[in-house]
Amino acid sequence: MANFIDIHTRTGQSQPKHYKTTLFRGDALMLGMNCLESGQEQAVHTHRDQDKFYLVIEGRGTFTIGTEEQEVGPGTAVWAPRGVEHGVRNDAAVQLVLFMGIAPAPAKKRTGEPG
Amino acid sequence: MANFIDIHTRTGQSQPKHYKTTLFRGDALMLGMNCLESGQEQAVHTHRDQDKFYLVIEGRGTFTIGTEEQEVGPGTAVWAPRGVEHGVRNDAAVQLVLFMGIAPAPAKKRTGEPG
Repeated sequence: MANFIDIHTRTGQSQPKHYKTTLFRGDALMLGMNCLESGQEQAVHTHRDQDKFYLVIEGRGTFTIGTEEQEVGPGTAVWAPRGVEHGVRNDAAVQLVLFMGIAPAPAKKRTGEPG
Repeated sequence: MANFIDIHTRTGQSQPKHYKTTLFRGDALMLGMNCLESGQEQAVHTHRDQDKFYLVIEGRGTFTIGTEEQEVGPGTAVWAPRGVEHGVRNDAAVQLVLFMGIAPAPAKKRTGEPG
């Protein structure tokens, strides 16, 4: 597996569900990209045993973390610790590109998609 | 603890050792910033039980991962899985700003500094 990836080469589009791809996977950590077209969302959900983060790379995301909702743009890191519900939707006109990670890494899905 | 942090507000400078700060810490994952001035380096080292990544935010970094060395710039994610030696130096003229994470989170240091 490559140890160096230009994340801008790993964006994509998907309908109806948003695009996800894995960049790196170890036992302790999985990293990936989530790309949400305008109007797409990742529904609010909770990982009971995993800490998760997003870093906004392009666009703007409206994130729910617990009872808090914030719309943020490039350079904002968003923290969703284990047991705290979280989700994101793209209310903006342009694509939302997120670098994300989850620890420990989830069980491998056949599709290799991150959670 | 805040769940939203603009990472550009968490850069800094330190001498002689490079600047480190923690953004978020859970049991499974710690996220932080590493800022290396021109000429500074994080010496090659190994985490036996932790997966680690860097994402270059600004500047250029010369990374060693195992036997591989590469100089990369903004948008490149660098993967240092458990047991693989890794380090980075700033051979460029401008500051190198890295977003980084390590999983599981290291034992808490008194200084709160990331590994």
